[in-house]
Amino acid sequence: MDKKNRNGKHEKYMRIALELAKKGIGKVSPNPLVGAVIVKENRIISKGYHRVYGKAHAEVYTLEKAGKNAEDAIIYVTLEPCSHYGKTPPCVEKIIKSGIKRCVIGSKDPNPKVSGRGIEILRKNGIEVVENVLKEECDSLNQDFFKYIKTGIPYLFLKCAITLDGKIALSNGISKWITNEKAREKVLYYRNRFMGIMVGINTVIYDNPNLTARIKDGNNPFRLIVDPDLRVTDGYNVIKNNDDEKTVIITSVLNKNSKKCKTLQEKNKVKFIFLEGKHFIISDMLKEIGKLSISSILIEGGEKLISRAFSEEIIDGGEIFIGNKIFGDNASKPFVSGFIKKSINEAIILNNVKYNVYDENVGMEFYMKKYGKK
Amino acid sequence: MDKKNRNGKHEKYMRIALELAKKGIGKVSPNPLVGAVIVKENRIISKGYHRVYGKAHAEVYTLEKAGKNAEDAIIYVTLEPCSHYGKTPPCVEKIIKSGIKRCVIGSKDPNPKVSGRGIEILRKNGIEVVENVLKEECDSLNQDFFKYIKTGIPYLFLKCAITLDGKIALSNGISKWITNEKAREKVLYYRNRFMGIMVGINTVIYDNPNLTARIKDGNNPFRLIVDPDLRVTDGYNVIKNNDDEKTVIITSVLNKNSKKCKTLQEKNKVKFIFLEGKHFIISDMLKEIGKLSISSILIEGGEKLISRAFSEEIIDGGEIFIGNKIFGDNASKPFVSGFIKKSINEAIILNNVKYNVYDENVGMEFYMKKYGKK
Repeated sequence: MDKKNRNGKHEKYMRIALELAKKGIGKVSPNPLVGAVIVKENRIISKGYHRVYGKAHAEVYTLEKAGKNAEDAIIYVTLEPCSHYGKTPPCVEKIIKSGIKRCVIGSKDPNPKVSGRGIEILRKNGIEVVENVLKEECDSLNQDFFKYIKTGIPYLFLKCAITLDGKIALSNGISKWITNEKAREKVLYYRNRFMGIMVGINTVIYDNPNLTARIKDGNNPFRLIVDPDLRVTDGYNVIKNNDDEKTVIITSVLNKNSKKCKTLQEKNKVKFIFLEGKHFIISDMLKEIGKLSISSILIEGGEKLISRAFSEEIIDGGEIFIGNKIFGDNASKPFVSGFIKKSINEAIILNNVKYNVYDENVGMEFYMKKYGKK
Repeated sequence: MDKKNRNGKHEKYMRIALELAKKGIGKVSPNPLVGAVIVKENRIISKGYHRVYGKAHAEVYTLEKAGKNAEDAIIYVTLEPCSHYGKTPPCVEKIIKSGIKRCVIGSKDPNPKVSGRGIEILRKNGIEVVENVLKEECDSLNQDFFKYIKTGIPYLFLKCAITLDGKIALSNGISKWITNEKAREKVLYYRNRFMGIMVGINTVIYDNPNLTARIKDGNNPFRLIVDPDLRVTDGYNVIKNNDDEKTVIITSVLNKNSKKCKTLQEKNKVKFIFLEGKHFIISDMLKEIGKLSISSILIEGGEKLISRAFSEEIIDGGEIFIGNKIFGDNASKPFVSGFIKKSINEAIILNNVKYNVYDENVGMEFYMKKYGKK
């Protein structure tokens, strides 16, 4: 990483590429977020990012903007350029043709089948390659993509809003509002950030949410409702107010031939995932959801679903929003339950924690493990 | 506040006085924390603070250091100088004699009987007085003193360490450790900051703490144990390891003539507060504790005592330390219980919140009300 990195120039330009990459949030999934910057004689001559799923990759877009000027320039790109024909021709081909002399890369391609191949091809064609610049930041940006591309299982990110005593609702189900407006705005960001939202049927019944992103120019996520007994009806907002064919109900195969199921499919354009039995294993659900090309899920609760996810140890990360309120009522609903702990060492520990302050509320953001390619 | 306050000079020097005042933490209670700075021709010629209870007040100490140089200088002091003979002669007298030309003040004296009198005397004697400089910060510093001087009731500051799901211990009583070392160090700061620590007898039995400050040159607080049935014995650390005559047991008057009580008094130098019945009202306890000249109390739990304090609405402020751990065990011990809430509006709300991050833990610091003199 020492090729002419005078005064941390590489980091400086990679940071710009990273910020550009973030502009693709909500628009490129299940593709990764990628940003690129082309620099010549210490001046940025072109910059861009992957804007829309299925359209030009960041490198291609940026090279096209630079035109002939790209000759002898340096390209900074947050992720290893692709070397295979997908929806678009491979980026390495475009880079080689452009006359770029050096390629500075953040993350390696996580796909074990192709990781490093883009770099190899570039080098074989006489292009200098600098790897691992701001690797950690670049890896962080695409945790969901990295997991999904490696495993086919969607990335699972937890969101919940709790009181100081860890409650998500009163005993009568009331939960509006435990956290303030600023914290709730961040939830809308997450709904745009991830491809799907998952809730249990009780959340639909008690809170009757729309489960939309409500962000300007934002993308509404897939709405995944875990509903073994098919208790949902077309009277609930999530069904009634959404006609984008992005509602998915996960229910027991026993409901497959029911009239309600047929009506929801035909009239309300609801998709179904049918599973055996009624006590679903979340990792079974995730496998099926992954098959629908949904690469990342925001799991929003309630208690049963969250507890289940913790017990299966399949949560990848999350943010727990804590309100400055106390219920102090033993009958109110905890956000996690059903464990029996006899020693502090058995407690669930949230890793890689950072705190976000929302005026009088706080968010504990965490990442249980990190996905990336060494 | 506009008397020659060019470029916020008053604030600049008052801030220095404030920092000096804090050096008295743990040493001056039940007196207030006070800092002073003397400035002449834009140079600090003397600075000081109230160092030890019963010894020179900040103003006197600082004026003595300045000597004849104080003539025509400006004194900055965080609290209105006293005008009455207490353990030391009044500060206003000393200021007048010194030849100081201007006195810049942060907080007014909170004692309704004397508030403003110091200022009046200074003005009558031809000294310019500037009031309310960094008033809010100066008021914040002495919340405990302000409350106690106005009401005779000790200031009550809550400390507790909870999991994300609001638990202070497992069902078997184990609680070591929910929070990390950095958070626990802050607790030692509070034990030095406040004059007394209050715990329920269950905390003594389950955790067997020493309840000492363990801060270098720190002051050990009074240890207040709420123990209606006198279950404590001299085998517990809090009795066994402390011989400074600062242990106070609050128990039922029914135990007054017991042998155990006599032995604890005579052998272990324990003080007693006797109350009627067995279900104590905390505000009754506070009145009695106030009579012992204990002006501020850190209330450390457990569940019963904290819940009681919230239900009596007598907590003045506190810090709730949140670990990045989840028990998820319904049988584990909540930090607050016994309330029944039917609407979110009935939740206990913590006011004036600020967050302190201790690596992977966070502290929610709050102040339910503010004491000060307008």
